[in-house]
Amino acid sequence: MQIAVLLYDRFTTLDAVGPYELLARLPGAETVFVAKEPGPVRGDQGSLALVADKALGDVPRPDIVLVPGGPGSREAMHDPEILDWLRTADATSTWTTSVCTGSLVLAGAGLLAGRRAACHWLALDELAPLGAESTGERVVVDGKYVTAAGVSSGIDMALHLLGRIAGDATAQTIQLLTEYDPQPPYDAGSPAKAPAAIVAHWRGQAEKVLVQE
Amino acid sequence: MQIAVLLYDRFTTLDAVGPYELLARLPGAETVFVAKEPGPVRGDQGSLALVADKALGDVPRPDIVLVPGGPGSREAMHDPEILDWLRTADATSTWTTSVCTGSLVLAGAGLLAGRRAACHWLALDELAPLGAESTGERVVVDGKYVTAAGVSSGIDMALHLLGRIAGDATAQTIQLLTEYDPQPPYDAGSPAKAPAAIVAHWRGQAEKVLVQE
Repeated sequence: MQIAVLLYDRFTTLDAVGPYELLARLPGAETVFVAKEPGPVRGDQGSLALVADKALGDVPRPDIVLVPGGPGSREAMHDPEILDWLRTADATSTWTTSVCTGSLVLAGAGLLAGRRAACHWLALDELAPLGAESTGERVVVDGKYVTAAGVSSGIDMALHLLGRIAGDATAQTIQLLTEYDPQPPYDAGSPAKAPAAIVAHWRGQAEKVLVQE
Repeated sequence: MQIAVLLYDRFTTLDAVGPYELLARLPGAETVFVAKEPGPVRGDQGSLALVADKALGDVPRPDIVLVPGGPGSREAMHDPEILDWLRTADATSTWTTSVCTGSLVLAGAGLLAGRRAACHWLALDELAPLGAESTGERVVVDGKYVTAAGVSSGIDMALHLLGRIAGDATAQTIQLLTEYDPQPPYDAGSPAKAPAAIVAHWRGQAEKVLVQE
Protein backbone atom coordinates (compact mmCIF):
# COMPACT_ATOMS: atom_id res chain seq x y z
CA MET A 1 0.00 0.00 0.00
CA GLN A 2 1.76 3.14 -1.21
CA ILE A 3 0.42 6.59 -0.28
CA ALA A 4 1.62 9.57 -2.32
CA VAL A 5 1.16 13.07 -0.93
CA LEU A 6 1.52 15.77 -3.58
CA LEU A 7 3.34 18.97 -2.67
CA TYR A 8 3.43 22.16 -4.73
CA ASP A 9 4.47 25.72 -3.96
CA ARG A 10 2.13 27.52 -1.55
CA PHE A 11 0.18 24.47 -0.42
CA THR A 12 -1.44 24.59 3.03
CA THR A 13 0.69 22.51 5.35
CA LEU A 14 -2.03 21.10 7.63
CA ASP A 15 -3.99 19.92 4.57
CA ALA A 16 -1.14 17.51 3.92
CA VAL A 17 0.14 16.73 7.41
CA GLY A 18 -3.24 16.16 9.08
CA PRO A 19 -4.28 13.17 6.99
CA TYR A 20 -0.65 12.06 6.57
CA GLU A 21 -0.21 11.67 10.31
CA LEU A 22 -3.13 9.23 10.49
CA LEU A 23 -2.89 7.45 7.12
CA ALA A 24 0.83 6.75 7.44
CA ARG A 25 0.06 4.70 10.57
CA LEU A 26 -1.84 2.18 8.45
CA PRO A 27 -0.05 -1.11 8.99
CA GLY A 28 2.08 -1.92 5.97
CA ALA A 29 1.69 1.46 4.32
CA GLU A 30 4.59 3.29 2.72
CA THR A 31 4.08 7.04 2.41
CA VAL A 32 5.98 9.23 -0.04
CA PHE A 33 5.87 12.99 -0.42
CA VAL A 34 6.21 13.90 -4.09
CA ALA A 35 6.64 17.12 -6.05
CA LYS A 36 7.75 18.21 -9.50
CA GLU A 37 11.28 18.13 -8.16
CA PRO A 38 12.55 16.48 -4.98
CA GLY A 39 13.50 18.83 -2.18
CA PRO A 40 11.88 21.37 0.10
CA VAL A 41 8.50 22.76 -0.94
CA ARG A 42 7.36 25.85 0.93
CA GLY A 43 3.82 26.19 2.21
CA ASP A 44 1.49 29.15 1.80
CA GLN A 45 2.47 30.91 5.02
CA GLY A 46 6.11 31.05 3.95
CA SER A 47 7.50 29.91 7.28
CA LEU A 48 7.42 26.15 6.76
CA ALA A 49 8.76 23.87 4.04
CA LEU A 50 8.12 20.14 3.79
CA VAL A 51 10.56 17.90 1.96
CA ALA A 52 9.41 15.97 -1.10
CA ASP A 53 11.59 12.87 -1.16
CA LYS A 54 10.65 11.91 -4.71
CA ALA A 55 9.82 13.48 -8.05
CA LEU A 56 6.40 12.83 -9.57
CA GLY A 57 7.83 10.41 -12.11
CA ASP A 58 9.37 8.28 -9.36
CA VAL A 59 5.93 7.43 -7.97
CA PRO A 60 3.70 6.61 -10.94
CA ARG A 61 1.32 4.08 -9.36
CA PRO A 62 0.44 4.96 -5.76
CA ASP A 63 -2.50 3.18 -4.18
CA ILE A 64 -3.67 6.38 -2.49
CA VAL A 65 -3.20 9.84 -3.96
CA LEU A 66 -3.59 12.79 -1.57
CA VAL A 67 -3.74 16.36 -2.89
CA PRO A 68 -3.67 19.21 -0.37
CA GLY A 69 -5.16 22.63 -1.04
CA GLY A 70 -3.75 26.08 -0.66
CA PRO A 71 -3.31 29.28 -2.66
CA GLY A 72 -0.86 27.46 -4.92
CA SER A 73 -3.67 25.17 -6.07
CA ARG A 74 -4.55 27.92 -8.55
CA GLU A 75 -1.30 27.28 -10.38
CA ALA A 76 -1.26 23.53 -9.73
CA MET A 77 -4.71 23.08 -11.28
CA HIS A 78 -3.34 24.34 -14.59
CA ASP A 79 0.13 22.76 -14.42
CA PRO A 80 0.42 20.14 -17.19
CA GLU A 81 3.09 18.14 -15.37
CA ILE A 82 1.01 17.89 -12.20
CA LEU A 83 -2.20 17.16 -14.09
CA ASP A 84 -0.53 14.45 -16.20
CA TRP A 85 0.84 12.82 -13.08
CA LEU A 86 -2.56 12.95 -11.38
CA ARG A 87 -4.31 11.35 -14.36
CA THR A 88 -1.69 8.61 -14.60
CA ALA A 89 -1.72 7.93 -10.85
CA ASP A 90 -5.51 7.96 -10.79
CA ALA A 91 -5.70 5.37 -13.54
CA THR A 92 -4.50 2.70 -11.11
CA SER A 93 -5.17 4.21 -7.69
CA THR A 94 -7.51 2.63 -5.17
CA TRP A 95 -8.34 6.01 -3.64
CA THR A 96 -7.87 9.48 -5.08
CA THR A 97 -8.28 12.11 -2.39
CA SER A 98 -7.98 15.80 -1.65
CA VAL A 99 -8.30 18.32 1.14
CA CYS A 100 -9.59 21.89 0.81
CA THR A 101 -8.92 23.45 -2.61
CA GLY A 102 -7.02 20.31 -3.54
CA SER A 103 -10.35 19.24 -5.05
CA LEU A 104 -9.94 22.04 -7.59
CA VAL A 105 -6.68 20.42 -8.69
CA LEU A 106 -8.38 17.02 -9.04
CA ALA A 107 -11.19 18.71 -10.94
CA GLY A 108 -8.66 20.53 -13.10
CA ALA A 109 -7.32 17.12 -14.10
CA GLY A 110 -10.85 16.12 -15.07
CA LEU A 111 -11.11 13.53 -12.34
CA LEU A 112 -14.24 14.84 -10.63
CA ALA A 113 -16.47 15.23 -13.69
CA GLY A 114 -20.01 14.35 -12.66
CA ARG A 115 -18.94 13.58 -9.12
CA ARG A 116 -19.89 15.05 -5.77
CA ALA A 117 -17.02 16.76 -4.00
CA ALA A 118 -16.06 18.85 -0.99
CA CYS A 119 -13.88 21.96 -0.91
CA HIS A 120 -13.08 24.89 1.38
CA TRP A 121 -16.38 26.65 2.15
CA LEU A 122 -15.20 29.83 0.43
CA ALA A 123 -14.44 27.93 -2.80
CA LEU A 124 -17.45 25.62 -3.09
CA ASP A 125 -18.85 27.63 -6.00
CA GLU A 126 -15.74 26.93 -8.04
CA LEU A 127 -16.45 23.21 -8.34
CA ALA A 128 -19.48 23.44 -10.64
CA PRO A 129 -17.66 25.19 -13.51
CA LEU A 130 -15.15 22.33 -13.34
CA GLY A 131 -17.87 19.73 -13.70
CA ALA A 132 -18.17 18.62 -10.08
CA GLU A 133 -21.13 18.96 -7.80
CA SER A 134 -20.36 20.81 -4.60
CA THR A 135 -21.84 19.72 -1.31
CA GLY A 136 -21.70 21.30 2.09
CA GLU A 137 -20.44 18.06 3.64
CA ARG A 138 -17.14 17.84 5.49
CA VAL A 139 -16.07 14.61 3.80
CA VAL A 140 -17.52 13.35 0.54
CA VAL A 141 -17.00 9.79 -0.68
CA ASP A 142 -18.04 9.28 -4.31
CA GLY A 143 -16.70 6.00 -5.55
CA LYS A 144 -12.95 6.03 -5.05
CA TYR A 145 -12.87 9.83 -4.89
CA VAL A 146 -12.75 11.14 -1.35
CA THR A 147 -12.64 14.88 -0.88
CA ALA A 148 -12.63 16.93 2.28
CA ALA A 149 -13.60 20.51 3.14
CA GLY A 150 -11.18 23.16 4.45
CA VAL A 151 -7.75 22.56 5.96
CA SER A 152 -8.42 20.61 9.18
CA SER A 153 -11.07 18.37 7.62
CA GLY A 154 -8.40 16.09 6.19
CA ILE A 155 -8.06 14.49 9.61
CA ASP A 156 -11.70 13.41 9.54
CA MET A 157 -11.20 12.23 5.97
CA ALA A 158 -8.28 10.07 7.03
CA LEU A 159 -10.43 8.31 9.63
CA HIS A 160 -13.11 7.61 7.02
CA LEU A 161 -10.48 6.14 4.73
CA LEU A 162 -8.82 4.10 7.46
CA GLY A 163 -12.16 2.55 8.35
CA ARG A 164 -12.88 1.60 4.77
CA ILE A 165 -9.37 0.28 4.13
CA ALA A 166 -8.56 -1.48 7.37
CA GLY A 167 -11.77 -1.67 9.38
CA ASP A 168 -13.22 0.12 12.35
CA ALA A 169 -10.80 -1.25 14.95
CA THR A 170 -7.73 0.03 13.07
CA ALA A 171 -9.32 3.43 12.53
CA GLN A 172 -10.30 3.64 16.21
CA THR A 173 -6.79 2.60 17.23
CA ILE A 174 -5.22 5.35 15.17
CA GLN A 175 -7.75 7.87 16.49
CA LEU A 176 -6.82 6.83 20.03
CA LEU A 177 -3.06 6.95 19.46
CA THR A 178 -3.29 10.40 17.89
CA GLU A 179 -5.72 11.37 20.68
CA TYR A 180 -8.18 12.87 18.23
CA ASP A 181 -10.87 13.78 20.74
CA PRO A 182 -11.59 17.31 19.55
CA GLN A 183 -12.52 19.88 22.17
CA PRO A 184 -12.28 23.25 20.46
CA PRO A 185 -13.01 26.11 22.87
CA TYR A 186 -15.16 27.80 20.22
CA ASP A 187 -17.81 26.45 17.87
CA ALA A 188 -16.96 28.56 14.86
CA GLY A 189 -15.55 26.00 12.43
CA SER A 190 -18.13 26.33 9.67
CA PRO A 191 -20.06 29.19 8.10
CA ALA A 192 -23.25 27.81 9.66
CA LYS A 193 -21.77 28.01 13.16
CA ALA A 194 -19.39 30.99 13.19
CA PRO A 195 -20.65 34.46 14.13
CA ALA A 196 -22.51 35.86 11.13
CA ALA A 197 -20.45 39.05 11.00
CA ILE A 198 -17.22 37.08 10.73
CA VAL A 199 -18.64 34.85 7.99
CA ALA A 200 -19.91 37.86 6.04
CA HIS A 201 -16.58 39.63 6.31
CA TRP A 202 -14.61 36.69 4.97
CA ARG A 203 -17.11 35.95 2.20
CA GLY A 204 -16.04 39.33 0.89
CA GLN A 205 -12.37 38.42 1.20
CA ALA A 206 -12.44 35.02 -0.51
CA GLU A 207 -9.94 36.02 -3.16
CA LYS A 208 -7.51 37.20 -0.51
CA VAL A 209 -7.85 34.04 1.59
CA LEU A 210 -7.83 31.50 -1.19
CA VAL A 211 -5.54 32.92 -3.81
CA GLN A 212 -3.25 35.62 -2.54
CA GLU A 213 -2.21 34.27 0.84
CA MET B 1 5.25 38.44 18.08
CA GLN B 2 7.73 35.71 17.22
CA ILE B 3 6.68 32.06 17.43
CA ALA B 4 9.45 29.43 17.55
CA VAL B 5 8.59 25.81 16.79
CA LEU B 6 11.28 23.39 17.96
CA LEU B 7 12.15 20.44 15.74
CA TYR B 8 14.29 17.46 16.72
CA ASP B 9 14.85 14.04 15.19
CA ARG B 10 11.81 11.75 15.39
CA PHE B 11 9.30 14.38 16.43
CA THR B 12 5.63 13.78 15.54
CA THR B 13 4.81 15.98 12.60
CA LEU B 14 1.17 16.81 13.40
CA ASP B 15 2.20 17.91 16.92
CA ALA B 16 4.08 20.74 15.26
CA VAL B 17 2.02 21.46 12.15
CA GLY B 18 -1.42 21.39 13.80
CA PRO B 19 -0.87 24.33 16.13
CA TYR B 20 1.50 25.99 13.65
CA GLU B 21 -1.22 26.19 11.00
CA LEU B 22 -3.48 28.15 13.34
CA LEU B 23 -0.97 30.18 15.37
CA ALA B 24 0.93 31.40 12.31
CA ARG B 25 -2.28 33.08 11.12
CA LEU B 26 -2.16 35.43 14.09
CA PRO B 27 -1.98 38.93 12.59
CA GLY B 28 1.55 40.24 12.85
CA ALA B 29 3.11 36.97 13.95
CA GLU B 30 6.40 35.70 12.55
CA THR B 31 6.87 31.94 12.88
CA VAL B 32 10.27 30.26 12.76
CA PHE B 33 11.05 26.54 12.80
CA VAL B 34 14.26 25.97 14.75
CA ALA B 35 16.52 22.98 15.40
CA LYS B 36 20.03 22.32 16.60
CA GLU B 37 21.14 22.84 13.01
CA PRO B 38 19.17 24.43 10.17
CA GLY B 39 17.92 22.03 7.51
CA PRO B 40 15.53 19.11 7.18
CA VAL B 41 14.50 17.34 10.38
CA ARG B 42 12.80 13.98 9.89
CA GLY B 43 9.70 13.03 11.84
CA ASP B 44 9.04 9.81 13.69
CA GLN B 45 7.39 7.98 10.81
CA GLY B 46 10.47 8.46 8.61
CA SER B 47 8.54 9.55 5.55
CA LEU B 48 8.34 13.28 6.20
CA ALA B 49 10.94 15.91 6.99
CA LEU B 50 10.18 19.52 7.90
CA VAL B 51 12.76 22.21 7.31
CA ALA B 52 14.17 24.16 10.24
CA ASP B 53 15.09 27.55 8.81
CA LYS B 54 17.14 28.62 11.82
CA ALA B 55 19.48 27.19 14.41
CA LEU B 56 18.49 27.45 18.06
CA GLY B 57 20.98 30.22 18.70
CA ASP B 58 19.46 32.34 15.95
CA VAL B 59 16.16 32.59 17.84
CA PRO B 60 17.00 33.28 21.48
CA ARG B 61 13.97 35.30 22.56
CA PRO B 62 10.75 34.05 20.94
CA ASP B 63 7.46 35.27 22.38
CA ILE B 64 5.92 31.82 22.02
CA VAL B 65 7.85 28.57 22.31
CA LEU B 66 6.18 25.44 20.93
CA VAL B 67 7.65 21.98 21.61
CA PRO B 68 6.14 19.00 19.79
CA GLY B 69 6.26 15.47 21.12
CA GLY B 70 7.34 12.23 19.53
CA PRO B 71 9.63 9.29 20.22
CA GLY B 72 12.61 11.60 19.83
CA SER B 73 11.46 13.53 22.88
CA ARG B 74 13.28 10.87 24.93
CA GLU B 75 16.58 12.11 23.57
CA ALA B 76 15.56 15.77 23.40
CA MET B 77 14.60 15.82 27.09
CA HIS B 78 18.21 15.02 27.97
CA ASP B 79 19.95 17.07 25.28
CA PRO B 80 21.90 19.90 26.95
CA GLU B 81 21.80 22.12 23.88
CA ILE B 82 18.03 21.84 23.56
CA LEU B 83 17.44 22.23 27.30
CA ASP B 84 19.71 25.30 27.48
CA TRP B 85 17.86 26.89 24.59
CA LEU B 86 14.48 26.14 26.19
CA ARG B 87 15.53 27.66 29.52
CA THR B 88 16.89 30.77 27.81
CA ALA B 89 13.84 31.17 25.57
CA ASP B 90 11.50 30.57 28.48
CA ALA B 91 13.16 33.30 30.52
CA THR B 92 11.60 35.94 28.27
CA SER B 93 8.74 34.11 26.55
CA THR B 94 5.14 35.15 26.94
CA TRP B 95 3.91 31.59 26.41
CA THR B 96 5.84 28.33 26.68
CA THR B 97 3.88 25.48 25.14
CA SER B 98 4.03 21.84 24.19
CA VAL B 99 2.03 19.10 22.53
CA CYS B 100 2.02 15.40 23.48
CA THR B 101 5.33 14.21 24.97
CA GLY B 102 6.74 17.66 24.29
CA SER B 103 5.74 18.33 27.89
CA LEU B 104 8.39 15.81 28.96
CA VAL B 105 10.99 17.97 27.22
CA LEU B 106 9.73 21.09 28.99
CA ALA B 107 9.76 19.15 32.26
CA GLY B 108 13.25 17.89 31.48
CA ALA B 109 14.34 21.51 31.28
CA GLY B 110 12.82 22.05 34.74
CA LEU B 111 10.14 24.37 33.42
CA LEU B 112 7.11 22.49 34.71
CA ALA B 113 8.20 21.99 38.32
CA GLY B 114 5.12 22.27 40.52
CA ARG B 115 2.89 22.94 37.55
CA ARG B 116 -0.10 21.12 36.10
CA ALA B 117 0.51 19.73 32.65
CA ALA B 118 -0.94 17.58 29.87
CA CYS B 119 0.75 14.83 27.91
CA HIS B 120 -0.10 11.90 25.64
CA TRP B 121 -2.44 9.62 27.62
CA LEU B 122 0.08 6.79 27.53
CA ALA B 123 2.79 9.00 29.08
CA LEU B 124 0.85 10.86 31.79
CA ASP B 125 2.57 8.85 34.54
CA GLU B 126 5.94 10.16 33.42
CA LEU B 127 5.20 13.75 34.42
CA ALA B 128 5.18 13.25 38.20
CA PRO B 129 8.80 12.00 38.44
CA LEU B 130 9.78 15.17 36.57
CA GLY B 131 8.01 17.35 39.13
CA ALA B 132 4.84 18.16 37.19
CA GLU B 133 1.29 17.23 38.06
CA SER B 134 -0.45 15.28 35.34
CA THR B 135 -4.08 15.93 34.53
CA GLY B 136 -6.43 14.13 32.21
CA GLU B 137 -7.33 17.39 30.48
CA ARG B 138 -6.80 17.95 26.78
CA VAL B 139 -5.32 21.43 27.21
CA VAL B 140 -3.84 22.69 30.46
CA VAL B 141 -3.10 26.36 31.05
CA ASP B 142 -0.96 26.97 34.16
CA GLY B 143 0.35 30.50 34.12
CA LYS B 144 2.24 30.98 30.89
CA TYR B 145 2.72 27.23 30.44
CA VAL B 146 0.20 25.71 28.06
CA THR B 147 0.46 22.00 27.41
CA ALA B 148 -1.71 19.73 25.30
CA ALA B 149 -2.43 16.01 25.27
CA GLY B 150 -1.60 13.66 22.39
CA VAL B 151 -0.78 14.64 18.80
CA SER B 152 -3.98 16.25 17.46
CA SER B 153 -4.71 18.16 20.67
CA GLY B 154 -2.31 20.91 19.63
CA ILE B 155 -5.01 22.30 17.36
CA ASP B 156 -7.32 22.83 20.33
CA MET B 157 -4.40 24.32 22.24
CA ALA B 158 -3.77 26.81 19.47
CA LEU B 159 -7.36 28.05 19.65
CA HIS B 160 -7.06 28.54 23.41
CA LEU B 161 -3.88 30.54 22.87
CA LEU B 162 -5.32 32.60 20.04
CA GLY B 163 -8.27 33.56 22.19
CA ARG B 164 -6.04 34.67 25.05
CA ILE B 165 -3.61 36.53 22.79
CA ALA B 166 -5.92 38.14 20.27
CA GLY B 167 -9.47 37.72 21.56
CA ASP B 168 -12.40 35.52 20.72
CA ALA B 169 -13.15 37.03 17.31
CA THR B 170 -9.65 36.37 15.99
CA ALA B 171 -9.68 32.81 17.32
CA GLN B 172 -13.11 32.21 15.80
CA THR B 173 -11.95 33.67 12.48
CA ILE B 174 -8.97 31.33 12.35
CA GLN B 175 -11.17 28.38 13.32
CA LEU B 176 -13.52 29.29 10.47
CA LEU B 177 -10.78 29.78 7.88
CA THR B 178 -9.19 26.44 8.79
CA GLU B 179 -12.69 24.95 8.89
CA TYR B 180 -12.05 23.27 12.22
CA ASP B 181 -15.51 21.80 12.71
CA PRO B 182 -14.49 18.29 13.74
CA GLN B 183 -16.73 15.42 12.67
CA PRO B 184 -14.74 12.25 13.31
CA PRO B 185 -16.67 9.16 12.17
CA TYR B 186 -15.64 7.37 15.38
CA ASP B 187 -15.63 8.48 19.00
CA ALA B 188 -12.43 6.73 20.06
CA GLY B 189 -10.06 9.63 20.63
CA SER B 190 -9.42 9.15 24.34
CA PRO B 191 -8.94 6.15 26.62
CA ALA B 192 -12.30 6.93 28.24
CA LYS B 193 -14.10 6.70 24.90
CA ALA B 194 -12.25 4.11 22.81
CA PRO B 195 -13.24 0.42 22.96
CA ALA B 196 -11.82 -1.02 26.17
CA ALA B 197 -10.00 -3.85 24.42
CA ILE B 198 -8.11 -1.42 22.20
CA VAL B 199 -7.16 0.76 25.16
CA ALA B 200 -5.96 -2.25 27.15
CA HIS B 201 -3.89 -3.53 24.25
CA TRP B 202 -2.09 -0.24 23.77
CA ARG B 203 -1.54 0.32 27.48
CA GLY B 204 0.64 -2.77 27.23
CA GLN B 205 2.48 -1.33 24.23
CA ALA B 206 3.27 2.13 25.58
CA GLU B 207 7.00 1.69 25.20
CA LYS B 208 6.58 0.69 21.57
CA VAL B 209 4.26 3.61 20.77
CA LEU B 210 6.06 6.33 22.66
CA VAL B 211 9.72 5.45 22.39
CA GLN B 212 10.52 3.05 19.60
CA GLU B 213 8.32 4.28 16.79
